[in-house]
Amino acid sequence: MPAFSKEEYTERIQRTKESMAEKGIELLLISQPANMNYLTGYDGWSFYVHQCLLVSMKQEEPVWIGRGMDANGARITTYLSDENIIQYADDYVHSLVKHPMHFVADVIKEKSWDKETIGVEMDQFYFTHRSYVELEKSLPNAKFVDANTLVNWVRIIKSEAEIKFMRRAGQIAAKVMDTAIESIDVGVRECDAAAKIVAAQYAGTEEYAGDYPAIVPLMMTGEAIKTPHLTWTEHIYEADAPVLLELTGVYRRYHAPIARTIFLGKNPPSLMQETADVVLEGLNAAIEFVKPGVTAEEVEETWRKAIAHSTVVKEARLGYSIGLNYPPDWGEQTISLRPGDKTVLKPNMALHLIPGIWHEEVGFEVDASIRVTETDNESLYDYPIDLILKG
Amino acid sequence: MPAFSKEEYTERIQRTKESMAEKGIELLLISQPANMNYLTGYDGWSFYVHQCLLVSMKQEEPVWIGRGMDANGARITTYLSDENIIQYADDYVHSLVKHPMHFVADVIKEKSWDKETIGVEMDQFYFTHRSYVELEKSLPNAKFVDANTLVNWVRIIKSEAEIKFMRRAGQIAAKVMDTAIESIDVGVRECDAAAKIVAAQYAGTEEYAGDYPAIVPLMMTGEAIKTPHLTWTEHIYEADAPVLLELTGVYRRYHAPIARTIFLGKNPPSLMQETADVVLEGLNAAIEFVKPGVTAEEVEETWRKAIAHSTVVKEARLGYSIGLNYPPDWGEQTISLRPGDKTVLKPNMALHLIPGIWHEEVGFEVDASIRVTETDNESLYDYPIDLILKG
Repeated sequence: MPAFSKEEYTERIQRTKESMAEKGIELLLISQPANMNYLTGYDGWSFYVHQCLLVSMKQEEPVWIGRGMDANGARITTYLSDENIIQYADDYVHSLVKHPMHFVADVIKEKSWDKETIGVEMDQFYFTHRSYVELEKSLPNAKFVDANTLVNWVRIIKSEAEIKFMRRAGQIAAKVMDTAIESIDVGVRECDAAAKIVAAQYAGTEEYAGDYPAIVPLMMTGEAIKTPHLTWTEHIYEADAPVLLELTGVYRRYHAPIARTIFLGKNPPSLMQETADVVLEGLNAAIEFVKPGVTAEEVEETWRKAIAHSTVVKEARLGYSIGLNYPPDWGEQTISLRPGDKTVLKPNMALHLIPGIWHEEVGFEVDASIRVTETDNESLYDYPIDLILKG
Repeated sequence: MPAFSKEEYTERIQRTKESMAEKGIELLLISQPANMNYLTGYDGWSFYVHQCLLVSMKQEEPVWIGRGMDANGARITTYLSDENIIQYADDYVHSLVKHPMHFVADVIKEKSWDKETIGVEMDQFYFTHRSYVELEKSLPNAKFVDANTLVNWVRIIKSEAEIKFMRRAGQIAAKVMDTAIESIDVGVRECDAAAKIVAAQYAGTEEYAGDYPAIVPLMMTGEAIKTPHLTWTEHIYEADAPVLLELTGVYRRYHAPIARTIFLGKNPPSLMQETADVVLEGLNAAIEFVKPGVTAEEVEETWRKAIAHSTVVKEARLGYSIGLNYPPDWGEQTISLRPGDKTVLKPNMALHLIPGIWHEEVGFEVDASIRVTETDNESLYDYPIDLILKG
């Protein structure tokens, strides 16, 4: 049931421990669902309560700690031995008195790890301020340091097995975008198109089941094209409407995002066509440039220079690293394609380039989900990069 | 575009300020997406970056602070005046140097709110430990107090307009469960059934668009019936398999969860039928008991006593309060139906009773989503409460 071989998880834990050693961290407390999954395979929609993984330099296997009802989920989805699956009682959930981190601290004390340097993910959504406060109070002899994206950086170069998963996600992504283009039409309710799109995401291909995306289908039309993160309504699509789509294919939590813009007519407004032309020129230049040895900021610079002749300006970063993820974000929080990011690209890194433009008068989105190869890069899916006219 | 009238938001803010006054809080910093939506209507899948709402005793309207690209989303989905929609630049996103809370602190200083008692949501997933640390460093004259579920408790009694939305969610829930029972069958891939179920969630009814749920379809079968929070695979359903379903209908972020167990055959194992009989007896007794004036713990006690003659034991709470929500949880984090919760039930509270049982040999789930009325309670949907045999 775990997605990868036992050896692959062992190797990931090994690389995590190397990074811990470099940073002087003796015990790592992980609460990002993607990081918990990466190191053990643990899967399940249980991240709405406190849970974590302890990675100790003194023990081979990590320790999973979660809510009682989820312990069987850990047994099913990981190779962890039973003694490393530890459950807390239900009265720790949403209690004003008891906090799951008291329980976690007790486990740490029992294992005599309570005088160590403990790394925690200080700026991650599934580790709250109170989690920190309760841990610190309960473990007065520990030294806490920030290990915010430690495992995220371990994730950055994908294994061959992961790349295989991302390609499957890419196959699903192409089907999802086909479904979107087929379903979105004049007179159709936005919610009915959304239903068909998400059904394509979950169903996957004949061979591979789809998985739920870390971000639901974003599909802006009408006034909403001014902004990126809205979903759908009960309204019907009108003739000559632009529709901005940010979608993805997902296979076993690995993402291949795909974004396109549809215009429901034959003649897009000239400002939209001009914006599209410029963005496509810039995106293609950036894709052309991506190869091992160049830096993240150089990719963005290539894009910026390619569109410098135009009035198009993109204030937000051009893209970021992708892979395994859970809601609320499919971004890996490592590489950002923007000035200042000097990360050198290497084979089997995976990037999402998403030059979305949202102005008062016009919105346009298109993207590329790519893998860095030994020589340059390749797309995770086979899909034309263009403004799509339907009418 | 906001879901409710301007007056309704004004009234919600008023009640929030009353609660702030009681607790000596002068400025409230809210980052739970459901609370931001409740007080202003703000909607959008932007909660994967830092954002917040400031509610000041010195100002009528709250202040929305978010990422630049989401400011138009705030203009579209709220009644906030332009001066109260404040955006931060993109280089605050996932940066090692700049943090969005530095920007928030600057806004607070500009408004001279920096010597006040500031309430923050200390144990909420969208407010990280580092958010707290950076705020505290940037605002040395402020006093920080925990306002973790302050707005959640303001949300607990629903308005008539909210109840209308929850009933619409209930109509969708019934369609979703119908779709599940229709789609799940021997020889069907789990992912194909999941696709149809989620399509029903998004499409809604002819009149009302569905919305994305705070929890994706949970659908356990095979070995996975031992545990509650798993999703689907590419496997096909086999004859005589039990399928545990935890689903929901959603209308404009309001939830009406619905859970049932299907057995794909005519003769369920006797242990499953016995468990179902006991659970249904207990659930019906609890539903019968719910009315204004009783306490949350008395509801759970009624359930426990009704099943005391059996061997069924439920360690987890029996249920919780529901309403408006975003991923990762549709629970409101206020009432828990369990010993010690002395909340007195009042009209227009809404509860999800979910006596799920997950053992080694058998799993069984069934539920009720109900509204407390003036005299007793009513279901949010019309659906038989039973073990469903299909074969």
